Amino acid sequence: MKLLRYGPVGSEKPGVLDEGGKIRDLSGVIADISGDVLSDKGLAQLSDLDLESLPVVEGEPRIGACVGNIGKIMCIGLNYSDHAAEAGQPVPKEPILFMKATSAVCGPNDDVEIPRNSRKTDWEVELAVVIGKRAKYVTEEEALDHVAGYCVANDVSEREFQSERGGGWTKGKSHDTFGPLGPWLVTRDEVPDPQALNLWLDVDNVRRQDGSTATMVFSVAEIISYLSQFMTLNVGDVISTGTPPGVGMGIKPNPVFLKPGQEMKLGVEGLGIQLQKTVQA
Amino acid sequence: MKLLRYGPVGSEKPGVLDEGGKIRDLSGVIADISGDVLSDKGLAQLSDLDLESLPVVEGEPRIGACVGNIGKIMCIGLNYSDHAAEAGQPVPKEPILFMKATSAVCGPNDDVEIPRNSRKTDWEVELAVVIGKRAKYVTEEEALDHVAGYCVANDVSEREFQSERGGGWTKGKSHDTFGPLGPWLVTRDEVPDPQALNLWLDVDNVRRQDGSTATMVFSVAEIISYLSQFMTLNVGDVISTGTPPGVGMGIKPNPVFLKPGQEMKLGVEGLGIQLQKTVQA
Repeated sequence: MKLLRYGPVGSEKPGVLDEGGKIRDLSGVIADISGDVLSDKGLAQLSDLDLESLPVVEGEPRIGACVGNIGKIMCIGLNYSDHAAEAGQPVPKEPILFMKATSAVCGPNDDVEIPRNSRKTDWEVELAVVIGKRAKYVTEEEALDHVAGYCVANDVSEREFQSERGGGWTKGKSHDTFGPLGPWLVTRDEVPDPQALNLWLDVDNVRRQDGSTATMVFSVAEIISYLSQFMTLNVGDVISTGTPPGVGMGIKPNPVFLKPGQEMKLGVEGLGIQLQKTVQA
Repeated sequence: MKLLRYGPVGSEKPGVLDEGGKIRDLSGVIADISGDVLSDKGLAQLSDLDLESLPVVEGEPRIGACVGNIGKIMCIGLNYSDHAAEAGQPVPKEPILFMKATSAVCGPNDDVEIPRNSRKTDWEVELAVVIGKRAKYVTEEEALDHVAGYCVANDVSEREFQSERGGGWTKGKSHDTFGPLGPWLVTRDEVPDPQALNLWLDVDNVRRQDGSTATMVFSVAEIISYLSQFMTLNVGDVISTGTPPGVGMGIKPNPVFLKPGQEMKLGVEGLGIQLQKTVQA
């Protein structure tokens, strides 16, 4: 299934995409795409529905982030060896972890703000994982059973805030609108191999990133198992798994960063496409 | 007011401490200590209540974290110059920021888990701030208007996970039960100067930390204003403002870390006392 949330910011309703690409309203069935809905049982109940019987959502509503009530967003840094190289960093021996504030989450096509005093706002297409079952001290073998599904994420980053202002990377990762998620939460039964997905990002129609999750340093299963040694992953938590090469800071001879009035278009194979305009905060 | 949450994990009810030290049940008035309740208007409505008219909570219920539905926990590192010295780090030029996962939050007297494979679990008494009004690009002068109140936090930390395993400090800060908060959320009208509070921590009745918020490098107002340049602070967000000297890793000649079966007792002047036993995860 392709689950989604539509409607104005803060009052999104749950929906599901039907075979013909129409949004069907799920608000008569569930309150949100969150919590128990993401469990194996919750997803099984949704997949038993006859979509034809659900109301079609007319028009072209705004699409929100594809998951509601996110508990935490864990992000993996330098998880593609060629991206580590362009960032001038060694390939990590263990997953590099940082957090993005949940207040940064927005819809896949919402405007992305360039923060005040920003000179280095940058893009990062990523495969994001949504947890469907609590994970504490889980093995790699059982890790993927804890996944509800996958979605596209743009891990928008301000490089100066991230690396030149002290502390971890959170300062450069957490501005409002730095976390577009969606358009859809694609349930894991439709993603047989999360390590075989192409992903790409264009800025103003120039292809900047073009990679495959096949070249991740640490697989989704390894990441989930690893994180669960340090903390409990709960239903509705999101893990963003790192970006392939082609970010603005890696462009030679001169880095390229975002300005207001630009357009980012990005996608992950089978998980849909995001389209954002940049605006001044 | 001293607001609190009592009852079993996950089903805490809101309460308020009366003049005689009894808990009065607020569940007939509000659903939780969270959201709009934390606004100036929400707190004013509570302070207008006649506490004598509210039911007394009998017995000695478990006390939960003093705030519900926390959006994010922002922590400031090395914010006491003498703690920076004992950690072998320079005094920071800007606030050092890291995040603690909200899944680490627990009640002030709950058991604290020593993670599996931990050799360096450590303590950190801190003054925590609870946001009551959305803050984005606020000045230092207006910053404290965005505070609902203050509470005690123990920023429990696994030093090896924090600093020797790659990435930011989150790995060492986010284990379940690494975030005891409370016992009370003391509203800001009862804390005229957050920079004049003594704070202390004992392990097995040995005084380990003994400091004052007067020696913070960056004040609460500076921290709120600073963070709001990078992200929006929302109602119910928590900021933990750093720890004074005396943590286990700073003890000479040999660092001292926690083992299962120990007891941490800690407090901040006017904000109450926490008491935790350590147990193996």
